[in-house]
Amino acid sequence: MRTDGSAGNDAHMTEVTGKDPLVLFMPSGKRGRFPVGTPVLDAARSLGVYVESVCGGRATCGRCQISVQEGNFAKHKIVSSLDNISAKGPKEERYESIRGLPEGRRLSCSTQILGDLVVDVPQDTVINAQVVRKAATDRVIERNAAVQLCYVEVDDPDMHKPLGDLDRLKVMLERDWGWKDLLIAPHLIPQIQGILRKGNWGVTAAIHRDMDSSRPFIVALWPGLKNEAYGIACDIGSTTIAMHLVSLLSGRIVASSGTSNPQIRFGEDLMSRVSYVMMNPDGREAMTKAVREAANMLIGKVCEEGQVDRHDILDMVFVANPIMHHLFLGIDPTELGQAPFALAVSGALQYWAHEIDIDVNRGARLYMLPCIAGHVGADAAGATLAEAPYKQDRMMLLVDVGTNAEIVLGNSDRVVAASSPTGPAFEGAEISSGQRAAPGAIERVRIDPETLEPKFRVIGVDKWSDEDGFAEAAASVGVTGICGSAIIEVVAEMYLCGIISQDGVVDGSMAARSPRILENGRTFSYLVHDGQPRITVTQNDVRAIQLAKAALYAGIKLLMEKLGIDHVDTIRFAGAFGSFIDPKYAMVLGLIPDCDLAEVKAVGNAAGTGALMCLLNRGHRREIEQMVSKIEKIETALESKFQEHFVYAMALPNKVDAFPKLAQVVTLPERKVLADDGGDGSGRRRRRSRD
Amino acid sequence: MRTDGSAGNDAHMTEVTGKDPLVLFMPSGKRGRFPVGTPVLDAARSLGVYVESVCGGRATCGRCQISVQEGNFAKHKIVSSLDNISAKGPKEERYESIRGLPEGRRLSCSTQILGDLVVDVPQDTVINAQVVRKAATDRVIERNAAVQLCYVEVDDPDMHKPLGDLDRLKVMLERDWGWKDLLIAPHLIPQIQGILRKGNWGVTAAIHRDMDSSRPFIVALWPGLKNEAYGIACDIGSTTIAMHLVSLLSGRIVASSGTSNPQIRFGEDLMSRVSYVMMNPDGREAMTKAVREAANMLIGKVCEEGQVDRHDILDMVFVANPIMHHLFLGIDPTELGQAPFALAVSGALQYWAHEIDIDVNRGARLYMLPCIAGHVGADAAGATLAEAPYKQDRMMLLVDVGTNAEIVLGNSDRVVAASSPTGPAFEGAEISSGQRAAPGAIERVRIDPETLEPKFRVIGVDKWSDEDGFAEAAASVGVTGICGSAIIEVVAEMYLCGIISQDGVVDGSMAARSPRILENGRTFSYLVHDGQPRITVTQNDVRAIQLAKAALYAGIKLLMEKLGIDHVDTIRFAGAFGSFIDPKYAMVLGLIPDCDLAEVKAVGNAAGTGALMCLLNRGHRREIEQMVSKIEKIETALESKFQEHFVYAMALPNKVDAFPKLAQVVTLPERKVLADDGGDGSGRRRRRSRD
Repeated sequence: MRTDGSAGNDAHMTEVTGKDPLVLFMPSGKRGRFPVGTPVLDAARSLGVYVESVCGGRATCGRCQISVQEGNFAKHKIVSSLDNISAKGPKEERYESIRGLPEGRRLSCSTQILGDLVVDVPQDTVINAQVVRKAATDRVIERNAAVQLCYVEVDDPDMHKPLGDLDRLKVMLERDWGWKDLLIAPHLIPQIQGILRKGNWGVTAAIHRDMDSSRPFIVALWPGLKNEAYGIACDIGSTTIAMHLVSLLSGRIVASSGTSNPQIRFGEDLMSRVSYVMMNPDGREAMTKAVREAANMLIGKVCEEGQVDRHDILDMVFVANPIMHHLFLGIDPTELGQAPFALAVSGALQYWAHEIDIDVNRGARLYMLPCIAGHVGADAAGATLAEAPYKQDRMMLLVDVGTNAEIVLGNSDRVVAASSPTGPAFEGAEISSGQRAAPGAIERVRIDPETLEPKFRVIGVDKWSDEDGFAEAAASVGVTGICGSAIIEVVAEMYLCGIISQDGVVDGSMAARSPRILENGRTFSYLVHDGQPRITVTQNDVRAIQLAKAALYAGIKLLMEKLGIDHVDTIRFAGAFGSFIDPKYAMVLGLIPDCDLAEVKAVGNAAGTGALMCLLNRGHRREIEQMVSKIEKIETALESKFQEHFVYAMALPNKVDAFPKLAQVVTLPERKVLADDGGDGSGRRRRRSRD
Repeated sequence: MRTDGSAGNDAHMTEVTGKDPLVLFMPSGKRGRFPVGTPVLDAARSLGVYVESVCGGRATCGRCQISVQEGNFAKHKIVSSLDNISAKGPKEERYESIRGLPEGRRLSCSTQILGDLVVDVPQDTVINAQVVRKAATDRVIERNAAVQLCYVEVDDPDMHKPLGDLDRLKVMLERDWGWKDLLIAPHLIPQIQGILRKGNWGVTAAIHRDMDSSRPFIVALWPGLKNEAYGIACDIGSTTIAMHLVSLLSGRIVASSGTSNPQIRFGEDLMSRVSYVMMNPDGREAMTKAVREAANMLIGKVCEEGQVDRHDILDMVFVANPIMHHLFLGIDPTELGQAPFALAVSGALQYWAHEIDIDVNRGARLYMLPCIAGHVGADAAGATLAEAPYKQDRMMLLVDVGTNAEIVLGNSDRVVAASSPTGPAFEGAEISSGQRAAPGAIERVRIDPETLEPKFRVIGVDKWSDEDGFAEAAASVGVTGICGSAIIEVVAEMYLCGIISQDGVVDGSMAARSPRILENGRTFSYLVHDGQPRITVTQNDVRAIQLAKAALYAGIKLLMEKLGIDHVDTIRFAGAFGSFIDPKYAMVLGLIPDCDLAEVKAVGNAAGTGALMCLLNRGHRREIEQMVSKIEKIETALESKFQEHFVYAMALPNKVDAFPKLAQVVTLPERKVLADDGGDGSGRRRRRSRD
């Protein structure tokens, strides 16, 4: 039996005629005619339908389960019936008696086609790739993992044919599984003798078929039948490291978890970490060690949660922003801190996991997605793969907002990408009452346009602040500050209520209407909550948000200009920030261009989803490698128009300009420009990498 | 410029016409027509003539030197003249003024063809591959090293095209040198930034193009122009480790040296080392560590001798007998100590040198030749490659005598191989007065057929023992024993003088003719030297030699029978033993079959020569890998005829039987069989691996 996806050339395959039974595989919809007696597994293989098998048709691994749909499928001209498959034979009966088979399930290796069939391949592979609060959409990643488990029975040593143990193993892996020109991980060489003898010459080899060389590799070896192997998909963010543990055979996510990036102790944001490297001789080593240790710790956590031995992890896919990419791989990130922001490596990379000090199976591989540019990293590549703007005709804007915003814009014709220096305001930093999203943080705000009275919700409390019992409910967590998503809301609400003008000035004249408008010397602020602490939105806070949103919008505008378009069809917000903000308010503030609100979606950790896709299907690795080389990279620092867009984008959208779709949903204020407050509304931009 | 040997497709190459100048390269004899103006280097490349170049035609590395032969080469219809090449240009002048050029030498990259030419490619590559006392024959190994040095100038980083440093390096290595799909050794990734900037974007990459994957690999990287790289060829024998340090660019042997195998402290012969592994839990680890340390020490020694930095060593080729092969690679050799003598690995292997704890350049590779069978190792494969019986029509017998004898027999039609358990007698072990070849050991013996008086020579003394001044000259070293080669001679001389009979019995009746025949109870011995110690050849000594030679001859006979032949055309003695014995005496004793004595040659460390060939020309790796898979392996232990041949071969050759060519040179005794002495002349054979 062959599992390399090539059509079988066994005798029974060559006799195919128009009269042979017709077999339809679901959900792929692939179909073909096969002679009576063909095992269902072979039929699936010859059509390229992915059905796992480890034991090579011995009916011992149980991986190749299918079921038969009964009925008259008129559309397909198939009447499918259980009579059209062979009865269970002794091997399958034996498997069932020992390991059990769910109702209706059959082992496809032991089930022969007797007539027309509709075959269900169980989709254990349906993956909820979204780890976000809203609009989680299931996605199916077609499985084509880089690692395959193959059980073989090796000939005993023979003095007449003195081939070595390894060499005889290779012979069987070629004969039974079609692997040619196999290589082997060097650490296995001294173990071969013992493993073969312990398994009484029956062994399971893990074959990695996506090594950076073109030859398949034996990366692990076990005595007897080994029925499971796992993979890790990981996004190393500056703040958080997020990880999935996945069965490489079923595609099932066994466990997901996250942890803080311990590099935070060297610097909160990425630029301060680069500074740390520049100032400390061992700074790079210390940070590399810290992030690798955190990854190892997190692997321990997901393995414990999933009750998996970490040495059963055989493949890993990582994404990261450029600075984390460099630090994780042990590369000095200093060059990324200054023009020309030169990456040491931009292409995809492969390692043995142990070369990066990751403690899993000694033969595990580690694949790092390519970086797009000096500020658009492997994480952005992962998100691009997950959302795949290049696969659709509609114009998609993909935004990942952090300290830098990574922006990808395009469709099947052309894709452009850039990074824009939004600064940390969207994350609550540089905001007077700003804080991280944590219990006690205000996460939702509404302002009554008549009374200018606010109501809000706090993380950890179920009620709005104007509901009965809020004070009691909030007593335990307190009301401690405003998190990033709520800052967008409160400033947008202030604008919609006329508290701030189109050019972002808090209107002091409103103090006459509401005691919530407070005077602070020459400027005014808005009181959200009069407690301990007192939570206000100051003129400087509004300026900080304006600067951030202007940077983001200017970057988007630049890319739209590059593509010669004046609107986008659909918008995807990737990352934690995007998951929590309300698209409407983002648009009211002009973070993003006008768009049908139903087409603005949060996609959660799309970078991690991209890593997961590469883990479960090696084809996605080639896809993103090729795509990254095609994406046109725009460096905002080099574009004179960027500055122009930036200055223009400082103002907030108004009724007249530019946001017709938004105007259908909210009533934007008239143009109203107040005298400037002396805030430094121009040019104050610092380059920061995404957090 | 391209160096991959493919014909250039540059513009000037496509205009080739019959009227273009004719260029003949010597010594290869390759010739072709090239348009006027073609650089000589390009012409050589397009014909597949190997001319090294590191700088890529910048006239800075000086590696591409050639010279022009002047004269009328009527046979080739070429009148070659210095007028037919371009004058030295400014670049070449500059190189000459700084680095100097030998008289008549030109840099072929900077020398254009103006008319017909005969071009000499300097053969720095002529290698004296033999490290033996006699009949050293020079051999030319056509150079095609696995490692090539390539200088490139990489583009500065560019924000508009944010390719990483590595990625831009790859672009240049493809553009200037034609390398596609390059991979890189992971340890270099963090170093790329620094090396590129230190070299001001000019760097030399070492490309390894014989990795076990099919893609070329960047294995080392230096700032600026790097003009030299080295390789190691090494034979790990049970007793001695022998090593060559070679320039990979010129092919010159820079230094050669040897050292004792420190595993001797775990056991003198291989089987006692296997026993040590079986008896001691850490035995394998200890022996692996010892032999790797010895290899590292020896590398230090050859590097010191050749004034080479060990980190400039980029490629290594090793050969070893099966047990040393396993121990060096960290594999348990226990299986090799008992039937079915199963190798853990028989095929060729590649490693990073550091994976075997070899301390050279971090990107150096290590290639181990394939083993032929459980007792016919990578060393025998190396010797087979060096002597290449498979390339000739004549029937060649290749014998490497040690504790086991490895025997390869064949020609271009068919090659068979076996190992025969000769035991340690040929090395002086189990011989009453035997000792290693060292000062004081008798190395040559002649016996006067009339008087039965011996004369001998001693290692470290210039005179024969019957010459004036011998006693004085020998006083400093003494006369301490008989080394392996002399044991053959003395027993053969005893036979020729009639002291022993055809069945190997020391003839006590000769005591009447000479006081040198001594009685020892029921048997007799021959007194070679009556000193301190007293040196004799006893009946048991003769028996030990008979057993060893019978085993060797029986193995040879078995292989001859397999091939259906009754004589061989030529015999090669590989290994130290073969270098020191006199073929005539070996034949008198019947170690080897009858053959024209002029056709019996010692070829020294042929295994090491094979390693050297694989180091300097990667094509030889494929050659021996393919050949080893074709060689028919005969396991003497499984062949009932072996025992029969063995018993028959206990007797010594006589005038009547089987040795017509030998009979032309020496007068063999008549058949003469004495009563047996009770020695255990049958069946006492133990399997031992070659020492």
